[in-house]
Amino acid sequence: MRAARLTGPGTLDLVEVPTPEIGPEDVLLAVGAVGACHSDLHILDAPAGAFPTPLTLGHEIAGRVERLGEAVTGWRPGEAAAVYGILGCGQCRACLRGQENRCRTVPLGGIGLSRDGGLADYVAVPASRLLKLGDLDLVQAAPLTDAGLTPYHAIELARPALRPGTCCVVIGIGGLGHMAVQILAATTAVTVIAVDSDAAALDLATRLGARHAVPAGPDTVDRIRALTGPAPDGADVVIDCVGVDATLETARQVVATGGHLSLVGLGGGTLAVRPSVAASIPLEASVRVPFWGTRAELQEVIALAAAGLLHADVRRFPLDEAVRAYQLLRRGEIHGRAVIVL
Amino acid sequence: MRAARLTGPGTLDLVEVPTPEIGPEDVLLAVGAVGACHSDLHILDAPAGAFPTPLTLGHEIAGRVERLGEAVTGWRPGEAAAVYGILGCGQCRACLRGQENRCRTVPLGGIGLSRDGGLADYVAVPASRLLKLGDLDLVQAAPLTDAGLTPYHAIELARPALRPGTCCVVIGIGGLGHMAVQILAATTAVTVIAVDSDAAALDLATRLGARHAVPAGPDTVDRIRALTGPAPDGADVVIDCVGVDATLETARQVVATGGHLSLVGLGGGTLAVRPSVAASIPLEASVRVPFWGTRAELQEVIALAAAGLLHADVRRFPLDEAVRAYQLLRRGEIHGRAVIVL
Amino acid sequence: MRAARLTGPGTLDLVEVPTPEIGPEDVLLAVGAVGACHSDLHILDAPAGAFPTPLTLGHEIAGRVERLGEAVTGWRPGEAAAVYGILGCGQCRACLRGQENRCRTVPLGGIGLSRDGGLADYVAVPASRLLKLGDLDLVQAAPLTDAGLTPYHAIELARPALRPGTCCVVIGIGGLGHMAVQILAATTAVTVIAVDSDAAALDLATRLGARHAVPAGPDTVDRIRALTGPAPDGADVVIDCVGVDATLETARQVVATGGHLSLVGLGGGTLAVRPSVAASIPLEASVRVPFWGTRAELQEVIALAAAGLLHADVRRFPLDEAVRAYQLLRRGEIHGRAVIVL
Amino acid sequence: MRAARLTGPGTLDLVEVPTPEIGPEDVLLAVGAVGACHSDLHILDAPAGAFPTPLTLGHEIAGRVERLGEAVTGWRPGEAAAVYGILGCGQCRACLRGQENRCRTVPLGGIGLSRDGGLADYVAVPASRLLKLGDLDLVQAAPLTDAGLTPYHAIELARPALRPGTCCVVIGIGGLGHMAVQILAATTAVTVIAVDSDAAALDLATRLGARHAVPAGPDTVDRIRALTGPAPDGADVVIDCVGVDATLETARQVVATGGHLSLVGLGGGTLAVRPSVAASIPLEASVRVPFWGTRAELQEVIALAAAGLLHADVRRFPLDEAVRAYQLLRRGEIHGRAVIVL
Repeated sequence: MRAARLTGPGTLDLVEVPTPEIGPEDVLLAVGAVGACHSDLHILDAPAGAFPTPLTLGHEIAGRVERLGEAVTGWRPGEAAAVYGILGCGQCRACLRGQENRCRTVPLGGIGLSRDGGLADYVAVPASRLLKLGDLDLVQAAPLTDAGLTPYHAIELARPALRPGTCCVVIGIGGLGHMAVQILAATTAVTVIAVDSDAAALDLATRLGARHAVPAGPDTVDRIRALTGPAPDGADVVIDCVGVDATLETARQVVATGGHLSLVGLGGGTLAVRPSVAASIPLEASVRVPFWGTRAELQEVIALAAAGLLHADVRRFPLDEAVRAYQLLRRGEIHGRAVIVL
Repeated sequence: MRAARLTGPGTLDLVEVPTPEIGPEDVLLAVGAVGACHSDLHILDAPAGAFPTPLTLGHEIAGRVERLGEAVTGWRPGEAAAVYGILGCGQCRACLRGQENRCRTVPLGGIGLSRDGGLADYVAVPASRLLKLGDLDLVQAAPLTDAGLTPYHAIELARPALRPGTCCVVIGIGGLGHMAVQILAATTAVTVIAVDSDAAALDLATRLGARHAVPAGPDTVDRIRALTGPAPDGADVVIDCVGVDATLETARQVVATGGHLSLVGLGGGTLAVRPSVAASIPLEASVRVPFWGTRAELQEVIALAAAGLLHADVRRFPLDEAVRAYQLLRRGEIHGRAVIVL
Repeated sequence: MRAARLTGPGTLDLVEVPTPEIGPEDVLLAVGAVGACHSDLHILDAPAGAFPTPLTLGHEIAGRVERLGEAVTGWRPGEAAAVYGILGCGQCRACLRGQENRCRTVPLGGIGLSRDGGLADYVAVPASRLLKLGDLDLVQAAPLTDAGLTPYHAIELARPALRPGTCCVVIGIGGLGHMAVQILAATTAVTVIAVDSDAAALDLATRLGARHAVPAGPDTVDRIRALTGPAPDGADVVIDCVGVDATLETARQVVATGGHLSLVGLGGGTLAVRPSVAASIPLEASVRVPFWGTRAELQEVIALAAAGLLHADVRRFPLDEAVRAYQLLRRGEIHGRAVIVL
Repeated sequence: MRAARLTGPGTLDLVEVPTPEIGPEDVLLAVGAVGACHSDLHILDAPAGAFPTPLTLGHEIAGRVERLGEAVTGWRPGEAAAVYGILGCGQCRACLRGQENRCRTVPLGGIGLSRDGGLADYVAVPASRLLKLGDLDLVQAAPLTDAGLTPYHAIELARPALRPGTCCVVIGIGGLGHMAVQILAATTAVTVIAVDSDAAALDLATRLGARHAVPAGPDTVDRIRALTGPAPDGADVVIDCVGVDATLETARQVVATGGHLSLVGLGGGTLAVRPSVAASIPLEASVRVPFWGTRAELQEVIALAAAGLLHADVRRFPLDEAVRAYQLLRRGEIHGRAVIVL
């Protein structure tokens, strides 16, 4: 079968490999679609040794059941499934609560990160990692598993603060941000304020449910503050889907006392937290770098999509253009999500 | 009456002033005891204009009701009362939930901070700020209102993580830290790990319920890690009561994935939060600078003390030695809490 | 001024009374609109002595500020305000958290229940009970304070269960039920199933956001079960706005294991809870009779209405037809909410 | 091997059966100790067909690993393990959160309930059901899995209400109740009020941490009310470990407005919940019949025991006296927990 593999730092090759074997608890999935994620660029850019090689990339996977391991029940060939990418230990106090994204034993990893992922004709997946998709389109479904799940989880962490009459700022209306806006619109009555440097992205945000669209620029903070009022008030929740110095600075300046600052974009900027009488972030506010999400949350993301409340804005690429898709992603030329369709 | 007043940057003077007038909703309290808090040093060190002058210091106050405003009910002269120092707007969405320490309208302030406090023979206080002390000793009670309430609130914010089988690290066993250890011992079954550079402080922590005492030094992280196990596991909660660069670095290195990092010591250090694949703090962990606490929480702190589960380790000073008390506090020569007794 | 007063069991008289005096912390409100609530019928039906007489009825009040007590700040004459009807002690552990509807000191009471309410030209209200209405229409606003707040609070209590992919059953689409449907539609993505014996009520529910409308009848349980699947699954939340034996039986039979059964309709039926291996309600499910709501929640209900997400379906009556409004309400001839307009 | 088996309604026989086979994901456990639970009496008393026969009883199991299925990792022969008895579907929204005791697919069942349990020399258990016991004594450990876990879970459900200054009433100081008292003492600072008709049980409760011991009798409610104050205040949490009409009536009368009524004793009494202005239970109070607990909670119960904070009061019986143990249990002659030791 074909597979797009990391073979060394910065190198992604489309190669022929054997179809994977499956164990008794596994399912062989015929891949239908795979989302191209910024994290894949981090993997491509990582120094030698940071990730196993060769490694088939792709952790946003939807497909159809091809073959079942002998101990697998509850699935039949042809059924559509989404892949939950994290593989927790299953025994630690986080995993026992279904919080595999906080596993206390297994370091950061998963399907397409520490073992072969979905950029291939087939992928072997433990049956426990599969969620039913019903009639959902596979191209729509693939981005749900990360571009949908990650902001959903970030929103879940702040949900008690997302009350009628409050504001939530979403910075960066790309793959994750355009999902965040829809999730907020579907599951809360907060006022969503979208921030982006690109007018088309802001238009998209407005169509998806943002009440206000604020262009990124020198007066971003002032424009947001005009909507939220002055400190110590502000946005109860800020979701930064970019994570560079400039967006972190905006986030810090608009979050309310006691608010939530959720840094889902791994842009590598720095937010200095300084405990002092003149603290650098508002008192009582929480700062967090969330990681992906839980299986239960992915089930809910799929339920939102099945109810017609969550649509990925996708641009399709065939597998042999995967390399180009990542190039465009790196250059910031992808709006919404690039999806490799098999 | 006598009052210890901030009269300008760095200057604390014991002066004669008129006994304060009270409004219809106020109570005149005959002050019994006032805790000397690190925050008072920040006030003393602040530039001119940062705080109103003259300002009677002292925000950790216990006393006895001297006189009631005409509209006050529920109190009688002679009754012992603790003062809740924060004055929220009472109307914002935080105040309506009793979270006046997150008031969205009134900037940082309160009794002894933005209006005259307790380092005086009498203090005027709105009746709503008073909590019943019953038979509690006033000298014991005064430190409850900040040195007790602040760590109690920090612990409340992290309470869902403080489960049997988990670890909580308390860094700095001074005025706040020695209360934190007792609150954890009384209200949870977590393993408490105390960290301090002073052997006597560590002895105190052990007597108060810490299971492990770790001297601050070059191998602090290793010694804590030997107790918690390696990352991505670690301490589910870290309460840093110091807040300088070295303690923040320890905190960052020992907190678990998904844990809580609570920075209650306003030491002015910097914790860099960097959202990236190699994030500077564990994924999913929250970072927060809590502020004081709520009236409901203070009621619970008093209940703990009334049940014999919380004792302040105090060193007494008369009012005319208040200046010396702050000098000792600044030099790090106070163990537990300095209390000015009137 | 005019006032509609309970003068004895079952007797509501429109009489002339003096305009009320106000204290320093009070506001005199010129009443604009008052909702007629089923609870008023309970008051009318109560035996002598159960409520103070004479008592001006009306606890769902919106009006305009007429005059301010001397200590009141933050309001100006002419401003539109809603009245939060509960008067908690302000000192117990419930009130300190803003849960005055759970006050541990003051027995069930409030404005229009234990002291004169809003069915009059003017009503005196402590300023702390007023919430800003901005531009909201007073006739729309009045029902928010109970018909809106009560289901909002019930939904809040069950909110963690109201996740995408789950079902919420609302039984009884009257004054409270038609608000419940809108609140669920605005703040969650759950599948709302409305139940009523009246086809017009079900039509209304569907227009307001219910996905399914089930006529009350012998096969109600089967029809709901066809949507939720069989036990131990079922509706994660059931809000019974009627509370007679038949609706309680339906509620009991469709709620899921671990679900929430919220009995907001005070119909006087009986739900037998029998702890045994064949328990009469699903294991882990909670049963509760909620009471009204909190000030913070009312602020959020008003925010929903201000955002255009919550509309009361009202039928207007002048004050001199108040008696007739209650007669129609008693006979079940009011759809939505009867509002007395002054 | 030997096994104590339900062979028909009311009949428990000690018979010779083959040692069970294990699948690739299973562990064969050499049973060390099995607690005798009231639920077993319900199984014995159930009509024919309610449970599969023959059925080896025993769902409170501790033992040592004898043999591993080929796919099992993380265990080695000889290791001590406790058995988590519930077998959820692993895919529903409850199981995905680790709440297998709320599984939406699998009806009430588990090891010793719907498949062979631990009253035998060996039991086959899926590896995922095993939790590490370390050095804990097996006789101590067995009761943790139900007599410990069930009250722990009930306490978890009410934990936000178990604050310093509040009261928790535990009714019935038997197998579950004496664990409840210790769990409350170890993990909260609430005032524990124990109720039982037996003086020895009350003595035990006092030794284990109950602040007050109230004999069951005609003035039980008055005596509890003297400690909690009058309604609408009362006990924030009531855990009824008996569940007959008399205890339910006591529970109903002492629980506070907004409190929690947790019915863990399956005594078959009836609590009538009547939504009306004169509701039969306090407004805002929740009523629930909890079921067992979660794996994460069992891990915490074991952590409490390992820390020396939870001890079962046990009476030992050899396997060939299992029938007699159940007879004594039925006659109310067991204090604490009867444990069959193999």
